[in-house]
Amino acid sequence: MAKKAKSAKESEVVMTELVLPNDTNTLNNLMGGRLMHWMDIVSAIAAQKHSNRIVVTASVDNVSFGKPIRLGNVVTLKAQVTRAFNSSMEVYIQVTAEDIPGNKKIDSNTAFFTFVAVDQTGRPIDVPELTPETEFEKELYEGALRRRQLRLVLAKRMKPEDAVELKSIFKLKPEDLS
Amino acid sequence: MAKKAKSAKESEVVMTELVLPNDTNTLNNLMGGRLMHWMDIVSAIAAQKHSNRIVVTASVDNVSFGKPIRLGNVVTLKAQVTRAFNSSMEVYIQVTAEDIPGNKKIDSNTAFFTFVAVDQTGRPIDVPELTPETEFEKELYEGALRRRQLRLVLAKRMKPEDAVELKSIFKLKPEDLS
Amino acid sequence: MAKKAKSAKESEVVMTELVLPNDTNTLNNLMGGRLMHWMDIVSAIAAQKHSNRIVVTASVDNVSFGKPIRLGNVVTLKAQVTRAFNSSMEVYIQVTAEDIPGNKKIDSNTAFFTFVAVDQTGRPIDVPELTPETEFEKELYEGALRRRQLRLVLAKRMKPEDAVELKSIFKLKPEDLS
Amino acid sequence: MAKKAKSAKESEVVMTELVLPNDTNTLNNLMGGRLMHWMDIVSAIAAQKHSNRIVVTASVDNVSFGKPIRLGNVVTLKAQVTRAFNSSMEVYIQVTAEDIPGNKKIDSNTAFFTFVAVDQTGRPIDVPELTPETEFEKELYEGALRRRQLRLVLAKRMKPEDAVELKSIFKLKPEDLS
Amino acid sequence: MAKKAKSAKESEVVMTELVLPNDTNTLNNLMGGRLMHWMDIVSAIAAQKHSNRIVVTASVDNVSFGKPIRLGNVVTLKAQVTRAFNSSMEVYIQVTAEDIPGNKKIDSNTAFFTFVAVDQTGRPIDVPELTPETEFEKELYEGALRRRQLRLVLAKRMKPEDAVELKSIFKLKPEDLS
Amino acid sequence: MAKKAKSAKESEVVMTELVLPNDTNTLNNLMGGRLMHWMDIVSAIAAQKHSNRIVVTASVDNVSFGKPIRLGNVVTLKAQVTRAFNSSMEVYIQVTAEDIPGNKKIDSNTAFFTFVAVDQTGRPIDVPELTPETEFEKELYEGALRRRQLRLVLAKRMKPEDAVELKSIFKLKPEDLS
Repeated sequence: MAKKAKSAKESEVVMTELVLPNDTNTLNNLMGGRLMHWMDIVSAIAAQKHSNRIVVTASVDNVSFGKPIRLGNVVTLKAQVTRAFNSSMEVYIQVTAEDIPGNKKIDSNTAFFTFVAVDQTGRPIDVPELTPETEFEKELYEGALRRRQLRLVLAKRMKPEDAVELKSIFKLKPEDLS
Repeated sequence: MAKKAKSAKESEVVMTELVLPNDTNTLNNLMGGRLMHWMDIVSAIAAQKHSNRIVVTASVDNVSFGKPIRLGNVVTLKAQVTRAFNSSMEVYIQVTAEDIPGNKKIDSNTAFFTFVAVDQTGRPIDVPELTPETEFEKELYEGALRRRQLRLVLAKRMKPEDAVELKSIFKLKPEDLS
Repeated sequence: MAKKAKSAKESEVVMTELVLPNDTNTLNNLMGGRLMHWMDIVSAIAAQKHSNRIVVTASVDNVSFGKPIRLGNVVTLKAQVTRAFNSSMEVYIQVTAEDIPGNKKIDSNTAFFTFVAVDQTGRPIDVPELTPETEFEKELYEGALRRRQLRLVLAKRMKPEDAVELKSIFKLKPEDLS
Repeated sequence: MAKKAKSAKESEVVMTELVLPNDTNTLNNLMGGRLMHWMDIVSAIAAQKHSNRIVVTASVDNVSFGKPIRLGNVVTLKAQVTRAFNSSMEVYIQVTAEDIPGNKKIDSNTAFFTFVAVDQTGRPIDVPELTPETEFEKELYEGALRRRQLRLVLAKRMKPEDAVELKSIFKLKPEDLS
Repeated sequence: MAKKAKSAKESEVVMTELVLPNDTNTLNNLMGGRLMHWMDIVSAIAAQKHSNRIVVTASVDNVSFGKPIRLGNVVTLKAQVTRAFNSSMEVYIQVTAEDIPGNKKIDSNTAFFTFVAVDQTGRPIDVPELTPETEFEKELYEGALRRRQLRLVLAKRMKPEDAVELKSIFKLKPEDLS
Repeated sequence: MAKKAKSAKESEVVMTELVLPNDTNTLNNLMGGRLMHWMDIVSAIAAQKHSNRIVVTASVDNVSFGKPIRLGNVVTLKAQVTRAFNSSMEVYIQVTAEDIPGNKKIDSNTAFFTFVAVDQTGRPIDVPELTPETEFEKELYEGALRRRQLRLVLAKRMKPEDAVELKSIFKLKPEDLS
């Protein structure tokens, strides 16, 4: 990975979507699946910008849906890469929705998607490292390791007892597991 | 929750989708976001069948994407409710893809979506309990509690030290946390 | 056609669709054209499964539309091949719709679509024979010949007087036509 | 049905569609289901123009698909009402396709769709009669009765022996059936 | 440009669209952007018919939107080439909308789109001249030069003082500018 | 118009779109009509943000299309209100496209759309004034009057000789017209 490290800022993408009838359920609320579809596109573009490569979705972390987003609302999605690991990149997405004529902001939603950069044949290829700059970017950068371990444990590709960073969410000290 | 318990079988839904050009990225592979959109619809229908109610997506657990699914492939999604908690239902989704003319099955993918049953005004409303029948359904039923705790911890709505069931994936005994 | 005969079961496909706003007319009822679009996809997949080939739609038999299907209803389409003739396959499709929160099943609808298996250049290619197993499959298999004659007569590719099987629907004996 | 009779010309509709990637199968040919979707829309508009009413699709006659229509082709659909029966109208649709840069016309396709005019509550309502004017319109008008009988027989809503007009396609005299 | 001149009639295209939920804003009116999307397709086909070439949109003249077009309305777009300039063609589009069950025609809208004919590599290629026939076609043909100058001035590819024809809309004589 | 004036910044909207197969023509280039559809949505949202009202598209100024935008490119649209006139707002849109894996920026495109703020019954309603802040915003603000006159002249709602500001693009002095 001899490539020059890049900042999180360089990968930032903003996407704005208007909630149309076909995006909604019978209560006229945005369907969760449509929102995830938009999250996937905006975060794939962020990963493309970081890597200047074609990217494929590798995983999506747990997403919670809060207050309903309504027909006619404007949804804004902001994405930026938090950290790179060899050929993979974690992307942080922040979603806000707004009923503009009603002057109402709807509580935001966040998610983490992970992408792998690939060449034209679909084989993984290394990407530049990411250097966090702001306090918030540093926090996202630190947490990326912990979230990565949770992903690997959940995908049964890492033993729970090896997930050293992850245990911190349970406020465990290393000697708690033996 | 005086309603009669229902079986997992009663909520089973099968959905079949053909991968069309607009569902694919520049490598002609199905985009992850489109697959999640389909997962959301099939699992919402399963939750509707269990509850006979309008349902809204509450959360999506970690999803990993394996082998690429290609343009022209046929994607089959099977969904069934695993367990009900008051007004919420966890749904298990199994995805398989197939290149039928090429006689190739693509490795399956699984996911858990959680839905809340609501009345016409959008307020949560209780649903019937689920009684697992087969070995596999019982396993899903047992795991549902653990996954629910992980969701609550990740959403910061439960303290990690209270997530008794969840700790089992780290092979911890209760006294390990103090 | 030296290929091993296959059962109807092997070609069975189930497709589930949620009726969204853009699928409906100004009365909020599913448009007939959208339903036929779904019928075409589910039956093409059944024909693909029987033949393991790319298939193209050759014809659609008379379709009647019964009770209206409403916005938000769940539509289930089941398709299976009824009989194979050289490179062509007749597929039977059964449609049911359901207003799940309202606990109402809408009367079912049936249709027959015919497909031709083709190679990569679009030329017809032979497919395996179909061996019916259940009573219902045998009935569909028998009727396929009669429906095929009606198709050929309607397409002016067969003289009415040669449509021996077809006449049975008019309870005619061969000597009635001379 | 005191309404003033209308001509076929008054209901004529022309629709032009460009074949886009999502309309095609893996051979880059227009899918039959998409073509039927367009046929349904153009013929519904023709029936609306004749009746000045909301209309719902009642049935589709046997449709045969000929030469493949390709990605990028321009498809022209012309529809006109052939005859009215109380609240129902039969519509004739003629389809032609063209590869304009390649200067190639693709063989045309024809179909008959039947619609019922309804009021705001979805109940059938009478429509004006149709008076055919040209030779071709008169031919379509005459045949409409025969096709209607075939539809009723196929829908098992008329006994074959009562389908007097239909028998003519088998060149039968009335006394042939007893 | 040795190719035989063609008439405006030869390029005429009629397109009919039904306004569906996803085409509308929260007032249930057709969005301007969707109408322009349809205008682009119908006029591109007219330019294809004149040139028998692949065409790309070069520019759109000022478009004004009048009375709102409603959900369920039928929109008719008529396009024809007005004049050809080397590889470019100006197309005139007339839009009418109709609430057919309500028996109401909505005031028409007009627009001019300009296309360039290109070869398979995307390079401009000459097209036949257009010979206007009717009075209306001659008027469109004459005005095309003036509109072309306005386009070039607005795109800063022509100096205002060279736009001789354009000045006529200000009722200027050549000596007014010096 | 007693409402407090707002800055251009307050109405800024950024929209990002990925060019998918159905957005492209047979050369795999983004169709002009699709781009205008996106322009309409992003600028409508900007007008909504300025007015906190439902808005409808009133007109689109001349748009020129430059270098082709390709399948898989990422298109970024930035919109901001330039000036308000009673109930109408002019919005400036800047479009850039990028082939990210190929590290190529495509030349930008600009456009002006005008919207009218309306109440729930569709009647025009006054909006806040706009106060330009940066040099660029002031330039857009000044030009808005000239463009408005051109729109009114082209829509035949203003006599050319009254379009005082517009004449400046022809470098005319007032006395040139009498």
